[in-house]
Amino acid sequence: MSEWAIECLKPDLPSVETYTSLLAEMDSNQWYTNFGPFVQKFEAKMAQFLSSTDGAPLNVVSCNNATSALELMLQNSGLPKGAKVMVPSVTFPATILAVIRSEMEPVIADVCEEEWTLTPAGVEAMLDYCDIDAVMPVASFGYALDSRAWEAFIDRTGIPVFFDSAAALGQQEVSPKIPTVFSMHATKPFGIGEGGLIVTASDAMASSSKLNSNFGFVQGLIKDIGFNAKLAEYFAIVGLTQFERWDAVTLKREQRWALYKECIDTLDTVDYCQAHKNKLPATLMVNTQGRSAAVIKTCIENKIQTRQWYLPPLHKHEIFQSYIKVGLQGLDKCPVSEYLESSLVGIPFHNFLTNEQIHHICAIIK
Amino acid sequence: MSEWAIECLKPDLPSVETYTSLLAEMDSNQWYTNFGPFVQKFEAKMAQFLSSTDGAPLNVVSCNNATSALELMLQNSGLPKGAKVMVPSVTFPATILAVIRSEMEPVIADVCEEEWTLTPAGVEAMLDYCDIDAVMPVASFGYALDSRAWEAFIDRTGIPVFFDSAAALGQQEVSPKIPTVFSMHATKPFGIGEGGLIVTASDAMASSSKLNSNFGFVQGLIKDIGFNAKLAEYFAIVGLTQFERWDAVTLKREQRWALYKECIDTLDTVDYCQAHKNKLPATLMVNTQGRSAAVIKTCIENKIQTRQWYLPPLHKHEIFQSYIKVGLQGLDKCPVSEYLESSLVGIPFHNFLTNEQIHHICAIIK
Repeated sequence: MSEWAIECLKPDLPSVETYTSLLAEMDSNQWYTNFGPFVQKFEAKMAQFLSSTDGAPLNVVSCNNATSALELMLQNSGLPKGAKVMVPSVTFPATILAVIRSEMEPVIADVCEEEWTLTPAGVEAMLDYCDIDAVMPVASFGYALDSRAWEAFIDRTGIPVFFDSAAALGQQEVSPKIPTVFSMHATKPFGIGEGGLIVTASDAMASSSKLNSNFGFVQGLIKDIGFNAKLAEYFAIVGLTQFERWDAVTLKREQRWALYKECIDTLDTVDYCQAHKNKLPATLMVNTQGRSAAVIKTCIENKIQTRQWYLPPLHKHEIFQSYIKVGLQGLDKCPVSEYLESSLVGIPFHNFLTNEQIHHICAIIK
Repeated sequence: MSEWAIECLKPDLPSVETYTSLLAEMDSNQWYTNFGPFVQKFEAKMAQFLSSTDGAPLNVVSCNNATSALELMLQNSGLPKGAKVMVPSVTFPATILAVIRSEMEPVIADVCEEEWTLTPAGVEAMLDYCDIDAVMPVASFGYALDSRAWEAFIDRTGIPVFFDSAAALGQQEVSPKIPTVFSMHATKPFGIGEGGLIVTASDAMASSSKLNSNFGFVQGLIKDIGFNAKLAEYFAIVGLTQFERWDAVTLKREQRWALYKECIDTLDTVDYCQAHKNKLPATLMVNTQGRSAAVIKTCIENKIQTRQWYLPPLHKHEIFQSYIKVGLQGLDKCPVSEYLESSLVGIPFHNFLTNEQIHHICAIIK
């Protein structure tokens, strides 16, 4: 039994009886991984499911998780080793770990106060203080990034952009100019258990990422330093089943989000991210205006689970101290991230919450 | 439909109806990955299943695949970056890729003519030509390595040893002095789909490997440059089910191996690895004494699938040209690997072969 009366997050995955017949088909194929027929079907269906900013066809490379997908995307991007890749200070650490494991140099950037992530204008302002070779904005908390604004950034600056949209599958429009990674981890809106995707219009990136997800084999010879990042057939089967229920899963989340906004709008001292009001988040962070410790304490007393997702910010982890940090006021200044650290609290947000629970949570955090 | 009358390899995994009740339990847990209850149960059961050279308790760290397990083992071994790790020239390339991805320096060594892999005596002889910081022998083709002989090697030389026993789970005795990796890929004898294990008597290696399989998180802060190598609950469920049928699965393989040995013993120009006569292999390589091309051609004509597992040897892949190569006659000489390249052919070996098929295959390769 959980120690919490209300848990922060509950996965909403298809139940086994809805996909046993597909598992039986996998058994009769005797094909369990290594680019099997279900993975092929899943990738094809995902390519149709995703929307592209210009309708151009997109390649989908499935991976065993999104961290592998981030590594493969960077390692097959054409960026050289040592390339400086800007990442937001407020993100799940896989973002920066993938940069470091790709032998590139992360540049940790303060986030925008309104959007809680990197914005094109913010990054352009920070270019006065540091050089970068690429930027990897994050669809923080599942709020989709503005693909068209980032396309314009590429046109203006010539700096390549890669999206870590781990939590925004189903919400994030994909730009053919911007390779994008999604997660299908159990805790993500489009959950399958473990899984990730690289989505790109670049045939070269897709094909080398795929080869390198299989050790780098080309006709029996190793052509690049790859690893094993293949998605197994089982997860493709869960994914194919998840498509069937996607509209219903999303509707439930939208209804809970609408009620939350209604309730939070009546509160004076707590707010959600107004800049993303019309987007559907994956996890719900509220801004307590510097009172996060007190709000968390009250929630614990009421057995309401909270999480401080993406916090502390990256520049506060000792292991990342040696990397360049930059904000709007120059190097080594990340005031927005630090404000968010003292202000943001993740409150329960999932498809199994009742209306009464949402009212109750809002009354408590008030 | 397969183009082959007889395929080389067919996975023998539990069928879905034998584990649907466990999947239903996973659904009711709403816990699909991240060290869930089935992974915990599976690791505990695996620790009992494995036999240790001195009966000492062993830690089992489950991973999403054996390549991740090799990387984690090396990265949490205490070996510094740049350490020279000797690997056999005849192996699945994941062995060397894991060394390179761990920012260590592989040393490619020729294999023993009798055993088709590294032996303590062979490695000691090669120490006259090069320095190494560690050695990673491979349980080639699933033939278990001699743990006690390698323990004696450590005692004599002080050089740390790591086993890549990917294909030998269930056959390989584990030494408390030798961290060992196993694969549970669908094509392995103990198949679950995708999966790997690090087995070690070292609590420190086990605990840091486990933390680093979860990004390196310690209480919400990143303490090391980890990644996501977690085994999902689904695979632990298949693994738990595989234990139940392990004796039967192994018996079938033993029966086929016994019949193959009987048939091959009647052939003059084809032999199996006599040094491993009393061990149970994972894949069956026969020595055609320089005639591999002709034998493969005949097999193809008869719709019998063959595979040249682990070949060409690593030193023949262009991408590994820059690394040190060593054999019994000195640097840059790997004559045994090159002989094996022209001689070894992998013939069909799996639990679905009939006695008639085995007789037929032996008649063809004769």
